Amino acid sequence: MTLDDLALRLRDFAAARNWEPFHTPKNLVMALSGEVGELTELFQWLTPEESAAVLDDPGTAHDVRDELADVLLYLVRLADVLGVDLLAAAEAKIDRNEHRFPPESVG
Amino acid sequence: MTLDDLALRLRDFAAARNWEPFHTPKNLVMALSGEVGELTELFQWLTPEESAAVLDDPGTAHDVRDELADVLLYLVRLADVLGVDLLAAAEAKIDRNEHRFPPESVG
Amino acid sequence: MTLDDLALRLRDFAAARNWEPFHTPKNLVMALSGEVGELTELFQWLTPEESAAVLDDPGTAHDVRDELADVLLYLVRLADVLGVDLLAAAEAKIDRNEHRFPPESVG
Amino acid sequence: MTLDDLALRLRDFAAARNWEPFHTPKNLVMALSGEVGELTELFQWLTPEESAAVLDDPGTAHDVRDELADVLLYLVRLADVLGVDLLAAAEAKIDRNEHRFPPESVG
Repeated sequence: MTLDDLALRLRDFAAARNWEPFHTPKNLVMALSGEVGELTELFQWLTPEESAAVLDDPGTAHDVRDELADVLLYLVRLADVLGVDLLAAAEAKIDRNEHRFPPESVG
Repeated sequence: MTLDDLALRLRDFAAARNWEPFHTPKNLVMALSGEVGELTELFQWLTPEESAAVLDDPGTAHDVRDELADVLLYLVRLADVLGVDLLAAAEAKIDRNEHRFPPESVG
Repeated sequence: MTLDDLALRLRDFAAARNWEPFHTPKNLVMALSGEVGELTELFQWLTPEESAAVLDDPGTAHDVRDELADVLLYLVRLADVLGVDLLAAAEAKIDRNEHRFPPESVG
Repeated sequence: MTLDDLALRLRDFAAARNWEPFHTPKNLVMALSGEVGELTELFQWLTPEESAAVLDDPGTAHDVRDELADVLLYLVRLADVLGVDLLAAAEAKIDRNEHRFPPESVG
C-alpha cells in the first residue's frame, strides 16, 4: 500500500458515508490536531527514556500505533482534499532543510 | 519516493547533524504538535469556504504545502524512531473503521 | 475564587498525591496541549454557526465547560511551576497588542 | 486585574477592530490551539531539567511569558464568547478530581 492508495481508500470511505460535506480543509486540520492531542496524552508524563521504550508494553504499543495511524489518516485525507502531493512537498522541504542546516563540519 | 525512502533520508539527516539525542519519541511528539499548531494558524480565521480555496493564493499555497510537509516529516521520523510501520498501522486502522462505521444503507 | 487561589489549590492537590516530580514544565505543556486537543475534538465537525450554539445541548455544554476547565487548570499549574504571573503577562501582552493592531479609524 | 476585567478588555478590543465576526467559538478554539503550538515549540527540544530552568535566560523567559499570555487571552475570549464562567468551571472540575484521585494514604 502506498500513500496514494491510502488517499483513494479514504476518499471512498468518506463518499460511502456521505461525510464529504464535513471534510472541509478547516475541519480536517482540527481533526488532525485532535488526533495529535491524543498522541500527546500517551507521552505527556513519560521521561525521555520511558518514551523510547513505549512499545515494550503491548497495550501502550497498540495505543501508540493507533494514534500514529489516525494522524496519518487525517493528514493524507487533508492533503487529498486540498490537492497537495504530500511526498513531493516533503521532499522539497527536506531539500530546503539541507541548505538551512548544513551538516556539522568534521575534524 | 516512498515513506520508507523518506524515513531513511531523515535518519541520515539527523545522524549527519548529531541530532539523534534530541530525537526522543517524547520530543518528536512535541515537534509534530508544534507543526500542527503552525498549520492550524493558517486556517484559524478562514470560513469553511475560504479554507477550501486556500491554494488559490500562491503565497498561502506555499505555506500550506510547507506545513503539511513538516507534519509528515516529523510523523515519519517519530514512527521510524519508534519502529512503527506507519502504512501498516494506517491500513489496520481503516480496516477497523470500516466495521465501526458501516456505510449508510441506501434507499 | 481567583487565579491565585486556584494555583494554590492545584499546588496542594499535586503535593498530596506526590505528583510534583511529574509536573515539569515540559510535561505540563504537553498536558495542556492534550486538553486543547480534547476541546478541539468537540468543535471539529461543527459549522461556525453550530459552534456558536454549542451550549444549547446540555450534554455538549457539560463537555465544553469540562475541557475549558482542564485547559485553565493546566495553564495555571504550568505558570505556577514556572513562577510566571499569568494576569500580569496577559495585561502586558494586550498592552502591546493595542499598539500592534490600532483600532480601525472611523469615517 | 481579574479574569473578568480581562474578558471585558478583550471584548472591547475585538469590538474596536470589528473582529467579532471572526471570533466564533470554532475559530477561537483553533487560535488557542495555535498558541499552545507556539508554546510547545519553546519546550520541544529541552530536557525536563532544562524545561524547569527555562526562565533563567531572559530572551526565552520573555517568549515563554508571551506565549502563556496568548494562551490565556484566547482561552478567556473563547469562554466569554461562549458565556462560560471559567473559574467556576475550574472549581467544579477540581472538586470532581478530588474524588476521582484520592490523595495517597499515608503510613
